Amino acid sequence: MTPGLALFYGGMVPVRNVLTMMMQNIIPLGVITLTWVLVGYTLAFSNKGTSVFGEFDAWALINVDTPQFHTVAAGVTIPALAFVAYQMMFAIITPALITGATAGRLRFAGWTLFLTAFSILVYPQVARWLWHPKGWLVQLGAQDWAGGMVVHASAGAAAVAVLLVVGRRRGWPQLKTSPNNLPLMLVGAGILWFGWFGFNAGDGLQANAIAAQALVNTHVAGGAAMLTWLLVERLTSGYSTLVGAVSGAVAGLATITPCAGFVNTGSALIIGLIAGCVCCFAVRLKHLLHYDDALDVIAVHFVGGVTGSFLLGFFADSAVNPVSDDGLFAGGGGYLLWHQIVAIVCVVLFSFVVSWLIAALISRAIGLREPGPEQDSLDRVQQGQAGYSLGGITARPTTSGRGAGPGRQPAGAVPPPRHLVSAIVNTDRIDGLRDALLMAGARSLELMETTVYTGRVRTEVFRSDVRKLDFEDRLRVYAAVDDEHEEAVAAVLRRFGAEPDSIHRLEISP
Amino acid sequence: MTPGLALFYGGMVPVRNVLTMMMQNIIPLGVITLTWVLVGYTLAFSNKGTSVFGEFDAWALINVDTPQFHTVAAGVTIPALAFVAYQMMFAIITPALITGATAGRLRFAGWTLFLTAFSILVYPQVARWLWHPKGWLVQLGAQDWAGGMVVHASAGAAAVAVLLVVGRRRGWPQLKTSPNNLPLMLVGAGILWFGWFGFNAGDGLQANAIAAQALVNTHVAGGAAMLTWLLVERLTSGYSTLVGAVSGAVAGLATITPCAGFVNTGSALIIGLIAGCVCCFAVRLKHLLHYDDALDVIAVHFVGGVTGSFLLGFFADSAVNPVSDDGLFAGGGGYLLWHQIVAIVCVVLFSFVVSWLIAALISRAIGLREPGPEQDSLDRVQQGQAGYSLGGITARPTTSGRGAGPGRQPAGAVPPPRHLVSAIVNTDRIDGLRDALLMAGARSLELMETTVYTGRVRTEVFRSDVRKLDFEDRLRVYAAVDDEHEEAVAAVLRRFGAEPDSIHRLEISP
Amino acid sequence: MTPGLALFYGGMVPVRNVLTMMMQNIIPLGVITLTWVLVGYTLAFSNKGTSVFGEFDAWALINVDTPQFHTVAAGVTIPALAFVAYQMMFAIITPALITGATAGRLRFAGWTLFLTAFSILVYPQVARWLWHPKGWLVQLGAQDWAGGMVVHASAGAAAVAVLLVVGRRRGWPQLKTSPNNLPLMLVGAGILWFGWFGFNAGDGLQANAIAAQALVNTHVAGGAAMLTWLLVERLTSGYSTLVGAVSGAVAGLATITPCAGFVNTGSALIIGLIAGCVCCFAVRLKHLLHYDDALDVIAVHFVGGVTGSFLLGFFADSAVNPVSDDGLFAGGGGYLLWHQIVAIVCVVLFSFVVSWLIAALISRAIGLREPGPEQDSLDRVQQGQAGYSLGGITARPTTSGRGAGPGRQPAGAVPPPRHLVSAIVNTDRIDGLRDALLMAGARSLELMETTVYTGRVRTEVFRSDVRKLDFEDRLRVYAAVDDEHEEAVAAVLRRFGAEPDSIHRLEISP
Repeated sequence: MTPGLALFYGGMVPVRNVLTMMMQNIIPLGVITLTWVLVGYTLAFSNKGTSVFGEFDAWALINVDTPQFHTVAAGVTIPALAFVAYQMMFAIITPALITGATAGRLRFAGWTLFLTAFSILVYPQVARWLWHPKGWLVQLGAQDWAGGMVVHASAGAAAVAVLLVVGRRRGWPQLKTSPNNLPLMLVGAGILWFGWFGFNAGDGLQANAIAAQALVNTHVAGGAAMLTWLLVERLTSGYSTLVGAVSGAVAGLATITPCAGFVNTGSALIIGLIAGCVCCFAVRLKHLLHYDDALDVIAVHFVGGVTGSFLLGFFADSAVNPVSDDGLFAGGGGYLLWHQIVAIVCVVLFSFVVSWLIAALISRAIGLREPGPEQDSLDRVQQGQAGYSLGGITARPTTSGRGAGPGRQPAGAVPPPRHLVSAIVNTDRIDGLRDALLMAGARSLELMETTVYTGRVRTEVFRSDVRKLDFEDRLRVYAAVDDEHEEAVAAVLRRFGAEPDSIHRLEISP
Repeated sequence: MTPGLALFYGGMVPVRNVLTMMMQNIIPLGVITLTWVLVGYTLAFSNKGTSVFGEFDAWALINVDTPQFHTVAAGVTIPALAFVAYQMMFAIITPALITGATAGRLRFAGWTLFLTAFSILVYPQVARWLWHPKGWLVQLGAQDWAGGMVVHASAGAAAVAVLLVVGRRRGWPQLKTSPNNLPLMLVGAGILWFGWFGFNAGDGLQANAIAAQALVNTHVAGGAAMLTWLLVERLTSGYSTLVGAVSGAVAGLATITPCAGFVNTGSALIIGLIAGCVCCFAVRLKHLLHYDDALDVIAVHFVGGVTGSFLLGFFADSAVNPVSDDGLFAGGGGYLLWHQIVAIVCVVLFSFVVSWLIAALISRAIGLREPGPEQDSLDRVQQGQAGYSLGGITARPTTSGRGAGPGRQPAGAVPPPRHLVSAIVNTDRIDGLRDALLMAGARSLELMETTVYTGRVRTEVFRSDVRKLDFEDRLRVYAAVDDEHEEAVAAVLRRFGAEPDSIHRLEISP
Repeated sequence: MTPGLALFYGGMVPVRNVLTMMMQNIIPLGVITLTWVLVGYTLAFSNKGTSVFGEFDAWALINVDTPQFHTVAAGVTIPALAFVAYQMMFAIITPALITGATAGRLRFAGWTLFLTAFSILVYPQVARWLWHPKGWLVQLGAQDWAGGMVVHASAGAAAVAVLLVVGRRRGWPQLKTSPNNLPLMLVGAGILWFGWFGFNAGDGLQANAIAAQALVNTHVAGGAAMLTWLLVERLTSGYSTLVGAVSGAVAGLATITPCAGFVNTGSALIIGLIAGCVCCFAVRLKHLLHYDDALDVIAVHFVGGVTGSFLLGFFADSAVNPVSDDGLFAGGGGYLLWHQIVAIVCVVLFSFVVSWLIAALISRAIGLREPGPEQDSLDRVQQGQAGYSLGGITARPTTSGRGAGPGRQPAGAVPPPRHLVSAIVNTDRIDGLRDALLMAGARSLELMETTVYTGRVRTEVFRSDVRKLDFEDRLRVYAAVDDEHEEAVAAVLRRFGAEPDSIHRLEISP
């Protein structure tokens, strides 16, 4: 699911930040894998230790006890390492969710450090409280099937904390960015939805009727929330969009997460319908409260996780799963609801406070926010790369040392050139062309992709459909030249394969 | 598989319709999830009811009986809800297949309504007839392992019906659209192929030798059909293409679907080889019969599903699966073949007629076809969004209210401008630039992406390869101005960071 | 995993070769599926035959014995066909790995033939030697859990052989290509990582503690290698990139492959850390030794597979898996290490020599290398298609026969035109426009995508954010005309919807 999340978020950010976004989501697969194996697992699931903290007896997985399971039928055993691996995936994806909120402004080193600290200081504790039989919230009577609080609410609270530390993107809220690749978003969303079946149906650690119920609930809530989100979106903006469909589905999936193995299908349907509605309206909160949650992590995951954990107090049903308490509607009174509220408040506060401390410390120490104009092209700044190279220029230009000499740079001192020499060339050997043009006296160079009619027909096939094309992609070159270099520049263009008729001179006046 | 289908189809449509296509495939995850849970499952698989229609006893899954299985070894039990969920995925993807045929012309509301009706009035009945032990086609002796008729033939027949109602795209068959993103198509196809293993190997509801046989058959038929499709394509068009490879594979997978658990590996191989050939030639039918099946759903799914269901009459082998009848080649005589033909005809007729009635009614009531020029940019019309935003312009332009004043719009009454002022600017703050230029008197504005030689070297890395670039992406602005505003416009351009040497004036004559 | 590999590699090649790259990865799903079913499986896993070659008794899977398993606990049985299918996936992906090394220069027919021969003459033998209990390397005492030698080292050695035959790409090493779509690379990498869990955890053929250990080891090594690769990359190039993260992960996954079920978690961690480091440095080898391994298959898979197989001699631990020998660090002395070295050398030599012979023969017979300039646009040459069509031109231009007449082509004999007539048109009906302009006397045509200020506001939504746009995508047309045709051409432009103010004339001098 973590690469799925990377694709989901990566598709929605602006094109110049796509690699950075995906990197922030992939790096937990490295960092948290290690922290979880070394200390995270034992802090969360050690059978020694208190109701609040685990001990270090299973550090580095050297002595892993048979794990004890909460809300799992008695007598179930699975290999300890299978449990370690399964729980590791939860630990990895939780802080990765935060990156959606802080898209477009994080520094890589600071973020990696935050991940490390969060995965040791926040996540294992919350997981212990709600998922280890000894955990104090478990003892209290709170329930969280697959991470409504442990994953979604704690990540959401941490997102609020990090947002407080790093602030808004430059120019927000006037800044409106366009998602670079919505099909990519759907690739990610599809993987997430599919992964969620494992996420939610696997929590009983058995392939039985409860797992089937959890799977059906997960799917039904996702589908129902998709519909209500689309409806709200249609009524408020006039459109039902793919982004809305997918956002609604993720909201429903997040909201059903704490409930999946504890409620029946009808309840899951109602919870899904509520989730799509509540989360869609929660998107507006950021404009009311002026926080810049770029991809609406708070609206979807925080609000979703909290809502689901709260609704469990109403809908939980021991007829579905005998290890569950009964909620209000199943005749259990308000007890479970009260326990849920206590647990939500404690988890949110704990995650928020500790995350804020970590983020503030890192921000002071090595910086967590990318300043100013770097925010507009994080990929170049942080990765020295571009996400896509889809243009027709095959050989991206490189200096061979010759072209970049100082004598060739436009000098402001001499009078500006009075002509543009322009020609259409084929789109390879750009580097050689550049060097030759500069050598011949071009004062500036400009390249534009263009499509020209060639008169030559070539075929293109799609299934058995043959179509004939007589346009081809080319490159138009503009070179500003002084009068005396004009002929030399034109000669270079001819030498590099410009069609004679395409070379012409435009008079410009500065 | 449904998101996979969305990506598969989404990659093949023109770029301006990609979101709409994917939306039509994703919405069944919302709509049919609900109709299946509420009434679809009980109509199809209720143990009460007749051989034609189920009863409503399990509506909303409130009282789900232990399901009875057809063509599954006696004594197999799985949780009822696991069966509900598994069958739900078939119900969801079936009408989603239709969208490939009708790509580029459906209205969203009408399509959603069609889905709803189809998933109640067509699909559960066909599923009951062939997959419930009580079903009349089952009683007759017809067999359909994983949906050759229930899924593929019924979806194909419905596609024909919907095509009859909505007609061809504007301009077809002269209209030739280019697929926007073939790698995306492959993402979808890969997911489909992988999902098909679950689709076909899971139908025996057991992880046993028959499931292994079904899985091997599925894979072998997909691979074999890929090869024959590529061969036919090569012989007829001169190319073997990725689209062909993938189309062939999907054709093979669709064709083996009714047979997967009933035939041996050699038969699967032969069926696959036939499928690639037959379906590839079937693509041409649309030009002979003048229907506009945009992504060849009829050639691949209808022809594939029917062919496979028919071939089962020859290849079925009770030595592979004791619950199967023997086909002609296994010494069973023509009985099974006859039963298959009856079943195919009935399923196709039923699905076609009911789908046509539904589509015609919806078309009358609220409209199912997007008229005229809207077909060329469905994403903007239906979703108010574009699928991609890959250009260099980070801040897509927005009106802040200042720029759009009426006084600033080009007025045809005054004499046309005689100069273009042009400059290269860096690619952010487009909105501010626009407002300032209009305020300064620009009569029109035009922006082109361009690449300029800067003389400054920056590095780009790919693995340990460091390459040096001295071109950068910029934006060239053209503003048509009257003589008196020329200086003011140039001043604005300078203020917004245009390099002085890049500002020039072109004389134009209208 | 094979489609995942296609996406992984497909994302990293230049945009004009993306379909060809993916096709080379997809075609094994057709070809090797058949060769494996027909003869590959029996050659590798027949219980008859010698320690070096299998017999043909199970050809076409007609008489498949119960398979005998190596390094699998006694008494385990799974359906024979499940084993056939599982092993088939290994056979398919192995030669597919080679395509990364030879990217940008292979011919399709030659490559397909190579695949066929490799899958019969190389792979089944190596698989028999290391994975059938009778295999001579098994008898010797060598171990390979999931394909460090069988898959990665043998593919890597074959890659070296094929590279020797086909040589470098034209222009390498000056040639620097940019990856076309790094998000697509991540889609592929995510699928590979996920698939690797099945690849490595499934090799014990049981869902037990050893499978869990193998899964944890796989994940831990992938994560650890990601971190060391990123560190080395940072220290040497100044950046930590997404490509580096993913490359490191794949290197770690390849390296742990031979060890996954034989070592404990701590060893996997160390192996992963070593893998990231070693493989990242190995990328530089190609510049030292001047071979053009385009996507670093040798550095990642060959070096990774060999390193892992070698390290197993140190880290193997019978306490983890009783069927394993003990390595040096587990007190087993140097025996296993020696056996591993012998096995590595034999597998590498065998795969290299036979692959070289196959490649050299094919190269002679039908050609394996795409010559000269074709390398820059393989998609057009081999597939007659482009991978993407993301521009605004919906109806890609087609000749209707009228426009391509000889009288309309630019003739060098007449004096060159002195004017460009230019206008902004909406982006459909390009084919009609072309024909009309040529008919009216245009001497050349050029189209550029542009964005114009329209003064008309339209809305775009993203979640509940409504943004207003007043720019729209258009097409700028330039037509070179003689004086006498200028008016006719302008009239055509007006007829095709050009806004009157946008039509202007530029004087050019040739």
